[in-house]
Amino acid sequence: MIDHQQIHDSNAAKNNAVKETLFVIKIGGNIIDNTDKLEKFLQQFASIHGKKILVHGGGKLATQLAKDLNIEQEMVEGRRITDAATLKIVTMVYAGYINKNIVAQLQANGNNAIGFTGADANLIKAHKRLASASKGIDYGFVGDVDEVNISAIEPLLSQGIAIVVAPITHDGKGQLLNTNADTIAQSIATALSKTYDVVLLYCFEKNGVLLDTNNDDSVIATINQDSFKKLKENQLIFAGMIPKLENAFVALEKGVGKVIIGKAESILDLVQAKAGTTIQNS
Amino acid sequence: MIDHQQIHDSNAAKNNAVKETLFVIKIGGNIIDNTDKLEKFLQQFASIHGKKILVHGGGKLATQLAKDLNIEQEMVEGRRITDAATLKIVTMVYAGYINKNIVAQLQANGNNAIGFTGADANLIKAHKRLASASKGIDYGFVGDVDEVNISAIEPLLSQGIAIVVAPITHDGKGQLLNTNADTIAQSIATALSKTYDVVLLYCFEKNGVLLDTNNDDSVIATINQDSFKKLKENQLIFAGMIPKLENAFVALEKGVGKVIIGKAESILDLVQAKAGTTIQNS
Repeated sequence: MIDHQQIHDSNAAKNNAVKETLFVIKIGGNIIDNTDKLEKFLQQFASIHGKKILVHGGGKLATQLAKDLNIEQEMVEGRRITDAATLKIVTMVYAGYINKNIVAQLQANGNNAIGFTGADANLIKAHKRLASASKGIDYGFVGDVDEVNISAIEPLLSQGIAIVVAPITHDGKGQLLNTNADTIAQSIATALSKTYDVVLLYCFEKNGVLLDTNNDDSVIATINQDSFKKLKENQLIFAGMIPKLENAFVALEKGVGKVIIGKAESILDLVQAKAGTTIQNS
Repeated sequence: MIDHQQIHDSNAAKNNAVKETLFVIKIGGNIIDNTDKLEKFLQQFASIHGKKILVHGGGKLATQLAKDLNIEQEMVEGRRITDAATLKIVTMVYAGYINKNIVAQLQANGNNAIGFTGADANLIKAHKRLASASKGIDYGFVGDVDEVNISAIEPLLSQGIAIVVAPITHDGKGQLLNTNADTIAQSIATALSKTYDVVLLYCFEKNGVLLDTNNDDSVIATINQDSFKKLKENQLIFAGMIPKLENAFVALEKGVGKVIIGKAESILDLVQAKAGTTIQNS
């Protein structure tokens, strides 16, 4: 079952420091909640050549299920508190329903795929967020990432299997935790950047980072540290985008090759950096 | 990342036809529904040396969730019909909640583990049961196994990772299906018997196959084809056990080394064939 050519290629790649490209693509609720859009996206995702990881968020399904079960969702400063009942729901919806349906649809599109949470193969170990780290707010079973273990996923990627990651982690002591999908995508991208030339794609509802938030055609094609500084100084950038961009620069500093932000519907252009906003160091 | 010693060992094993032991262990509702029993079982499972696969059933949680959501469970001849709403529930509960909590608990016990459904890495492809194959009854989204693909799990097993399988399969066309966990355990055991000396363990609520169903100490230690025939002729065997045993003999005929039936609480004795009923060809 061992492909010696593959071993040779892999070693050769390491020796020459010519890294293979790996796409880490994050999709959120605007795609997950829309059956048609998700189906279309997965068809396109399946057609992307090379190694790839899909990180999905949660969407509205968990909120709906909580509502149907009369489980009240406690919100603090616009953020959901993950109590035990909510953790159970997000585990069922994210790791069960959404993750497995995505995997089954990728299989239907001829793209071998396997679903993961952070608990699986110890992919992402996290710790329960300390109240002291969040302005005294107890967010409940929310996990902040400690480490990413890629040893199990590397042989799967080498077999051409796409990895589909649900935003659930674990603490290594038996506790599952709810973790932000953007953070998961960034952590995985960073961990894999030692082995691969990682392109991290954040899909959201806009065409990219916009100069004018009301004009979806005003996409800034590329942003680097210098231009980001100028855009901020001249207040030409929507305040809500600033943390996203700062996170992108953190990923670049940690070894990620490129971060691209854009619309999931344009995924085939995004992977070629023909759409969206490309964030790069220089 | 490639362990050459491992490659060598693997080839040597194949050449010498001395196969390594692999345990395929199935647990059902009587363990899954009991937090304390499940915790204890997983501690013991984690302490078993060697390669292992855990197949879990569903338990009462799915029925409870359906009830909480006012989704009526249609039963025909004592069997649940899997309509679309029920499929969604079992996918959430089996592949999400139960599977991921088992994986997290195994990690806590120092046993690296990864959760699978049949859709993941195309492990188990099935087809929707035809009404013509089930006395005209339409069981809904119930899958009968067509094929097991072990290429993705072999490198994981070689890394010492336990595989935890939820009883959900897929049809390769994007449809998830509800599949009997006993059948899944048997199908996986059979598929892996080409590579491994497979011991298939069915855990249930009794100590083994009993001569007297009211006496849990009347365990029949070993059954082979001859003794099975005699037990049946003399009506010394509980009718409900007959299909289980017939399935066990099918597994043996297909290459499984040994089938052991017993209590999950005795798992450490079962894996050594020191408890339960061992079913073997001769």
